[in-house]
Amino acid sequence: MSEQRRDMNAAWLDAVKWNSEGLVPAIAQEADGGMVLTLAWMNRDALALTAESGLAHYWSRSRKRLWRKGEKSGNEQRVRDIRLDCDNDAVLLLVEQRGGIACHTGRHLCFYQRLEDGHWRVVEPVLKDPRTIYAEK
Amino acid sequence: MSEQRRDMNAAWLDAVKWNSEGLVPAIAQEADGGMVLTLAWMNRDALALTAESGLAHYWSRSRKRLWRKGEKSGNEQRVRDIRLDCDNDAVLLLVEQRGGIACHTGRHLCFYQRLEDGHWRVVEPVLKDPRTIYAEK
Repeated sequence: MSEQRRDMNAAWLDAVKWNSEGLVPAIAQEADGGMVLTLAWMNRDALALTAESGLAHYWSRSRKRLWRKGEKSGNEQRVRDIRLDCDNDAVLLLVEQRGGIACHTGRHLCFYQRLEDGHWRVVEPVLKDPRTIYAEK
Repeated sequence: MSEQRRDMNAAWLDAVKWNSEGLVPAIAQEADGGMVLTLAWMNRDALALTAESGLAHYWSRSRKRLWRKGEKSGNEQRVRDIRLDCDNDAVLLLVEQRGGIACHTGRHLCFYQRLEDGHWRVVEPVLKDPRTIYAEK
């Protein structure tokens, strides 16, 4: 992805239909292999910073703060492509997932529960103990 | 996907963290090829019906009604797999997209705008005129 200059007043940011909380859902998909890793949320700052830096930034709804993916774990997402949908209210990022771990549980991806016979069954292994991932450095 | 019996009180439906409007975002990804087609929304009924019927059902926020994908266009999504994420607040469907058109604009997928040099550029062709897709039958 070519680097975009950050301009918080940019028309491309205005084109996005932010919800009543100023957010849009953002899907992160692996550029190679195509696995859907996560669904997170972005505010205007997060999307602008993502475009400027080439690294995925999100808005944490629980912590109510901007957050660079991998800032603690090191598992950054380098962004190759930013897409917007037909209604302008959902974003798709094509990313390279550093460390191969996108999920805070230590799994490759967050969608690791599969509906089987009326139960959610865990179908992806933990690749790294989260206590190791988030240990103080 | 094995068929699930519909039980609106089922524990697997309770496990989902519905938002304040009773919805979760649902990503539809092509089972073959891995393209991310759409992001739509589901309420409890939509998810239960999807699991029961094996066809994707969503909640239309604009029309405020339950909707079976393809009910007008014929472009159904046959669901092979239903996944839930680590926070239980996002769903991923692996689908077979009938007709090869997921978007109401007549494109293969909804994420057809790509950020290039500070502009959203349309990068996917219209495969079928929407007026033909939604013509009265």
